[in-house]
Amino acid sequence: MLFLTKENIIDSFTMRDAMDACNESLRLYSEGKASVPLRTNINVAKQEGQSLYMPAYVEADKDALGVKIVSVYPKNIEKNIPSVPATMVTLDAETGMVSAILDGTYLTQLRTGAVQGAATELLAREDAEIGALIGTGGQAEGQLWAMLTARPLKVVRIFDIDFERASAFAKEMEAKYGVEMIPCKEAKECVEGADVITSVTTSKRPTFSAEWVKEGAHINGVGAYTPEMCEIPKEIIKKASTVIFDTMDGVLKEAGDFIQPLEEGYVTEDHYNGELGQLALGQISGRQNDKEITIFKTVGSAVLDVYVANKIVEKAKKENLGQEIN
Amino acid sequence: MLFLTKENIIDSFTMRDAMDACNESLRLYSEGKASVPLRTNINVAKQEGQSLYMPAYVEADKDALGVKIVSVYPKNIEKNIPSVPATMVTLDAETGMVSAILDGTYLTQLRTGAVQGAATELLAREDAEIGALIGTGGQAEGQLWAMLTARPLKVVRIFDIDFERASAFAKEMEAKYGVEMIPCKEAKECVEGADVITSVTTSKRPTFSAEWVKEGAHINGVGAYTPEMCEIPKEIIKKASTVIFDTMDGVLKEAGDFIQPLEEGYVTEDHYNGELGQLALGQISGRQNDKEITIFKTVGSAVLDVYVANKIVEKAKKENLGQEIN
Repeated sequence: MLFLTKENIIDSFTMRDAMDACNESLRLYSEGKASVPLRTNINVAKQEGQSLYMPAYVEADKDALGVKIVSVYPKNIEKNIPSVPATMVTLDAETGMVSAILDGTYLTQLRTGAVQGAATELLAREDAEIGALIGTGGQAEGQLWAMLTARPLKVVRIFDIDFERASAFAKEMEAKYGVEMIPCKEAKECVEGADVITSVTTSKRPTFSAEWVKEGAHINGVGAYTPEMCEIPKEIIKKASTVIFDTMDGVLKEAGDFIQPLEEGYVTEDHYNGELGQLALGQISGRQNDKEITIFKTVGSAVLDVYVANKIVEKAKKENLGQEIN
Repeated sequence: MLFLTKENIIDSFTMRDAMDACNESLRLYSEGKASVPLRTNINVAKQEGQSLYMPAYVEADKDALGVKIVSVYPKNIEKNIPSVPATMVTLDAETGMVSAILDGTYLTQLRTGAVQGAATELLAREDAEIGALIGTGGQAEGQLWAMLTARPLKVVRIFDIDFERASAFAKEMEAKYGVEMIPCKEAKECVEGADVITSVTTSKRPTFSAEWVKEGAHINGVGAYTPEMCEIPKEIIKKASTVIFDTMDGVLKEAGDFIQPLEEGYVTEDHYNGELGQLALGQISGRQNDKEITIFKTVGSAVLDVYVANKIVEKAKKENLGQEIN
């Protein structure tokens, strides 16, 4: 059994690797090669916590099998420990034996960034130069890294309702990624003129206005993951030529920004073009010209976790990384 | 995160410990303190295998949380690797963080023995001297160990459809446990006059006849775990004064020997007295005298795995056993 820390994963697996793995896994998902049972949710009322078990299996050249274990314990913050600790367990699909244990928190950050990167790569204008990132929480760096990997952006504007936080984040990221980062006091400043816009918040109201979005922009909705959350304005959904989801099932069950306009009758299902896997397979078309607006929405799927994790394990083994335990 | 091998568990956790943990966990279960979601089953058709995920949570003085991951891969035998590899993952219920990884195969053997031992302790005659064990597969040693821990048996008779296997097993166990073991060519030889009878086979027909069972005997049905399997004769169910299950839900969903007579109308639900937890709590009564026959049937439950595993981890930590990984 291989034990992989965050550092082991960083040392061997790049955002490029993760984006390729996300693209592949969603193609396999859209081809019906993935088996994703409903996640199991145990309520730990005493701690006001939830313990979630998300197994999946993907049939591929090398099959991927495993389960991500995630706990949502808001009260952990008082104890100065992570409020959403996660651990990934991979199995060797050929033998059914547990093959590795991975840092699930880092895996989540990596694959949540990577799936957006895979979409941005397929949907954003080739000549995109200006990025806009809304929200600077735990998933923000992965999102930024993916945007920069998908397109050689010259500048990224950073907005957060807490300007100091945005400034600190921008400074840190500029030093780390060597790309200019501009903290913004207003969301409008951040979004106007941007080519790639990524919102990663848990807001219940749109984090920007459709009027600010320039022609030809690509938008990623990453944060909202409950029917109450809604960070993408419905007006931009109607205006966009292409709206793509990581999984149709997931988004239409969980993402308020895409459920609410449908329930209101503001948009119809025709506005939702299909899945990223279908786009990658060429079954549906994406951007046709430099003027249209495209949108990608992700709520995540165990398919991404399990497939990316198995690829990480494969690569770490080749490079002799991690701790082998018998 | 603590990593515990079979050897680590053997070094710190006795059958006595495991029997106490099983008794406690089933009391908590019968009190409604356990949360056991349906297990998740992923079909890995390419390998003719199944990958099973069995989480549970038990509210106690120290809460227990975790998931057992079990794969059923019959074709593994051709590769000379275990056909039912298992890994147990425990979580700290106070933080939601993974606390330990344990050898799940040994855990299963230990707790499957221990739950029978906990029942035998409550139901068999105090002065039981002669044991009978039917079946010498992977779960047999745990069963034997539990019988010997529950009652100071003077001799145990061993039957298997393969007499050579029974002989080899008897020899090995006699050396290991210091109690006389007699391999039997016929099931009748094994069962007649025995005080504690344990059947641990996957047989679809009763492994013994009700006529052979002496007054005052206690019987454990451990092997049958599908509605097609049936190792306990229905006549003895009708004859018994007390019939106890590990969990009512589990047995009436999975154990052919107790489902079939009910469906046939041979017995009614009144023949099934209740759960081991209720018996341990004193909510239902068990043996009243030395002449009556008692029966215990177990199909297992994630409650047992999770609770016993958490107790193992607790004890191993106190004794500084296992490998700590960060």
